[in-house]
Formats: sequence, C-alpha cells, structure tokens
Amino acid sequence: MIGPLPSWKNGAAKAILDFVAAVTAPGEDFVPSAERIAVFDNDGTLWCEQPMQPQIFFAQARAQRLADADPSLRERQPFKAFLEHDLPAIHALGKQGAFEFAFAVHAGVATEDFTRIAKKWIDTATHPATHLHYTQMVYQPQLELLRFLRSSGFKTFIVTGGGADFVRAFAPEAYGVPPEQVIGSTVRTRFENGNGRYNLTKLAELNSFNDREAKPQNIGVQIGRRPILAFGNSDGDMAMLRYTMSGPGRRMAMLLHHDDAAREVAYDREFRLSPLTEALDHADEYGFRVVSMKHDWEQVYASDR
Amino acid sequence: MIGPLPSWKNGAAKAILDFVAAVTAPGEDFVPSAERIAVFDNDGTLWCEQPMQPQIFFAQARAQRLADADPSLRERQPFKAFLEHDLPAIHALGKQGAFEFAFAVHAGVATEDFTRIAKKWIDTATHPATHLHYTQMVYQPQLELLRFLRSSGFKTFIVTGGGADFVRAFAPEAYGVPPEQVIGSTVRTRFENGNGRYNLTKLAELNSFNDREAKPQNIGVQIGRRPILAFGNSDGDMAMLRYTMSGPGRRMAMLLHHDDAAREVAYDREFRLSPLTEALDHADEYGFRVVSMKHDWEQVYASDR
Repeated sequence: MIGPLPSWKNGAAKAILDFVAAVTAPGEDFVPSAERIAVFDNDGTLWCEQPMQPQIFFAQARAQRLADADPSLRERQPFKAFLEHDLPAIHALGKQGAFEFAFAVHAGVATEDFTRIAKKWIDTATHPATHLHYTQMVYQPQLELLRFLRSSGFKTFIVTGGGADFVRAFAPEAYGVPPEQVIGSTVRTRFENGNGRYNLTKLAELNSFNDREAKPQNIGVQIGRRPILAFGNSDGDMAMLRYTMSGPGRRMAMLLHHDDAAREVAYDREFRLSPLTEALDHADEYGFRVVSMKHDWEQVYASDR
Repeated sequence: MIGPLPSWKNGAAKAILDFVAAVTAPGEDFVPSAERIAVFDNDGTLWCEQPMQPQIFFAQARAQRLADADPSLRERQPFKAFLEHDLPAIHALGKQGAFEFAFAVHAGVATEDFTRIAKKWIDTATHPATHLHYTQMVYQPQLELLRFLRSSGFKTFIVTGGGADFVRAFAPEAYGVPPEQVIGSTVRTRFENGNGRYNLTKLAELNSFNDREAKPQNIGVQIGRRPILAFGNSDGDMAMLRYTMSGPGRRMAMLLHHDDAAREVAYDREFRLSPLTEALDHADEYGFRVVSMKHDWEQVYASDR
C-alpha cells in the first residue's frame, strides 16, 4: 500500500483511509479537528507484550535490586515468582495482580526519579528472545497510523493498563505522544517536603487500574470527550471500544489480532496476562474491525528488514 | 504596558516578560517547548468567584429544578440553604462542602447531557450584581497572559477545584484551553449500557476533590511533569505553587490578590469558600509573586470599557 500507510494492506488500509477521509472532508460525516480524538491501548497494540508486558520485565529488574538489598524477599511471593522468572506463576497472577506488583516495587520513589529509572531501563534492557530493545518492538504500521491521524488533525492518546509514568518515559520518542496524552494506571502519591522542596512520592496503593470499564471512565476524567477512533487488542480494551462506537456520527474501533506466529506470536484467549475472548467473539456485533497482523500488515516491528 | 500584555502594568508585567524571555531564549535558563507547562487555577484566578463560585450558582439552579419536581427537598439541608440563597449558610459549608453539593445535584446525568446543560446555563445565566454573563467576568489580563504563553511555546492547563466537566463546557471558548487540558474535581461515573449504547453516568460519590495537595497529585496523574509556571489566588493553590517552585531551573509562581474593591471585590482571608491566608503571609518565603489586582492590572474584566 502506498500513501500514508505503507505497511498496511488489504481492506484494513482502505477502511482507515475511508474513515479519515469521511471525518475530515466537508460533508455529513465531518468532525471538527478539536473533536478528532483517537485512543490507543499500548501493550499488544503499539508494542509487543509477549511473553509478558515489558513493564513486568522492568519490575523484575527492580525486584532483583530490592532482593539484593534484602535477601528475605527471595522467598516471599510474588517476589519469588518474579525473581525466578517463573512465567506460569506470573501469568497466574492475572493482569491486575502482575501490574499491582509491578507498581508496588517502586513505592517510595519520587516521580521524577522514577522517570529517570524507567528511561534508563528502556534505553538498556533487551527482550529475552529477540534481544531487541523494547522500543525496537513497536509496530511499524501503528507508527504510520499515529502519524497519519495527527497529520489529519487528530489528537492521539494512549490509554493503557500499564503505569502512566512508565509509558510516559518513552511515549514521546517512541510514538510522538506527549506525556499529558498518556492515560494509564496510577498509584497514590504523597506530596511531601524534603529540605524545603516538594515532590510527589509513589506509594504502594493503587489509585486507578486503567483496564476494562476504567478506560472509558478515565477518558471521562482526563479527556472529557468521547473518542471517535479506538484501537485495542484485548478484552481489557472492549469497554473503550464500545464507548467509542456508542456516540453519534461516524466512528471506528479496531482490534489487533495476534495471528502471526512467524513474525510475532499467535495468541488470543489463552494469554492469562491479557486475554482476547469476548471482544473477538462479538467483534461483528459490536462493530469492531479485526485487524489481522498476518494478513493486514506488510511489516511488524519498526526495526524489521 | 504595550506589547503582548497591554492590560498588565508595573513590575508584574516586567517580571512575566523577563521570565518568558529567559526560558525561551538560548542560555542557561532555556526550557524546551515540550516542558513549558503552565497551570492556572480557575475560580478567582481566571474569572470572578464572588459572592460565590459560578458553579455554585449553577448548582443552585439545578437544585431549584429538582425541588420543583420533589418539594420535600425544600426543607432538607443543604438544599434549603441553596434554594433560599442563604449565603452565610452556603459559605459555612466551606469549599469542599459547597462543591460536593454542587457535584451531587447532577448525579444520574450522562456526561454528554451534563455538558449540554452546563453550556446552556453558561450561555444564559447572569451574575446577580453585575448582570453580566459569567464568561464576561473573565479577567482580561489573564486572557492576554494565556495567549502570550501559548504563543511562546507553552501548553496552558487549568487546574481547578471546580468540576472538570463544568469548566470544560466553557474553557475552549472563554480561555482557548481544550477540555483535555482542564484538570478538575471529578465524581465517580458508572459505565452503562442503555439500548445498546454505552455512556458514562455521573454518580454522587466524589472521585477527587482537586484542591490543596490534590492539585499537584492530579498534575502527576494527568500531566506527568512539573509545571514551570503556576498562577493561583488562594490557599487551595499553595501546594501547586510550591510544587512548581520546587523544581530545578527558573520557575514562576503568582498569586492574584483581590485588593480592588472599586473594580471587583477586596477579599482574602475572610472568604470562607476559598480563603487566602498562609500563601499570602508566606509569599516572599515561598517565592510567590503577589499580583495586585488594583495596582498591576490596567483592566479587570474582559467585558470592561
């Protein structure tokens, strides 16, 4: 496919181009630029989430450092599972359980220190199987889509179950999305004075786990308007996609189906950390367009070829 | 004062121009555009909050409609105080108490219906003393400052104790601030399906009252970076101003002092709905620049002259 979406092919490319043409050209489907809100899940939608979401690897590295300082943690669950990279045990925690642990290991860290730690990890860590940096495993077709939407007057947001501050540490460079356009899970913070300077210190307590119904709810809190385009890949995105499709006028909701065992990983309902079941089974009924990684994408990772 | 701030005068104008010149010109104080985050309180900072915040008048109108449908509300507090416009009783509720009532009267309303109701009220309601629309009582010098900051590469945010959705209903037109750059108080919502369409319905339960420490905490949740400029007018803004001043490099925090009985209202520590006490007493120590409405502003309301 030539044009703004060179890595997209088949009907998916045409459907996106048709939608953007319809909402940007004068006519009954026209949407003013200020209302062109597009929301994207991150893990599994913008970058690879297999064998587990990169933030879980990040937490594993942090757990290792905490255990070096306090060896008694090695025998305590879920530390033990993370330290031993016991994937079945980590998967068994489920999405919220695994992420709650991932957030809690940074309790006591000031937000700006967290950002430095996360950036350093992102710049140096590599995927256990591909040995690529995680930001090399962002999906090339999605980078093209984000850019195309922005050049068409859309504002692009990430709406992720991952930690907002974690995703903010790389979203500007990796996706061209500024930190304030990342809506993610958050922990409570303490506003505290150290030597006359005030900082926000992360606590272990969850403020919001941004998954399922919390996605549209936090879109309400932070954007205050209904998106007209949404892109996800799991049942955790279903509420956001249905919210997007429920407004008046023309709208588009897409679901990335990981069906490409050769170029990535083929999975859906069996992935305990973020299953895709109901959204896939009811895609037609709910008006979701299923995007096949295998058939609709010319290229997968931005670093490919 | 000529230039970008025609309604500002004296040292305040020069201090703002100096600050913006320092962070935008190459040199040791330079701040990249993406980090030029400016945050403004709304009530009493961008528009008039006397004799009570406009959203409290809005709630009063709603309470009247609810009482018309259910007359038993007329004898129930705090309905009675609002319906009888009993200002001392309303002031005695304090800021959070008055706003909690203001939010609760829209429980059961879908967010998009709320926006329509709020816009209609904003377009038609008038202030009891001046008979001006509330959006005519926005401060001209602040409109100039917001525009000047944006033209200097800043992103301008409103960080208000008022309801986020209420302020979003007029912020784009009144201030040039899009809804997603309004951080405000929020109630919990229910994500619900009505006839196959999903909406967010407001509940009576508070999600976050965006005042005092909650201001920097919600800046952390929604912007994810420390502002370099903050403007407030009450002790409710003090945490946000101190957070702003606590980062490295050059920063600016301003406190509007309502000392102009002739053109507006002279008040500070005695205003029960949002007192200014500690922030004023410690302004020098905390590095806040006090802006005098009487001495530093050539014009007050945008609709003046």
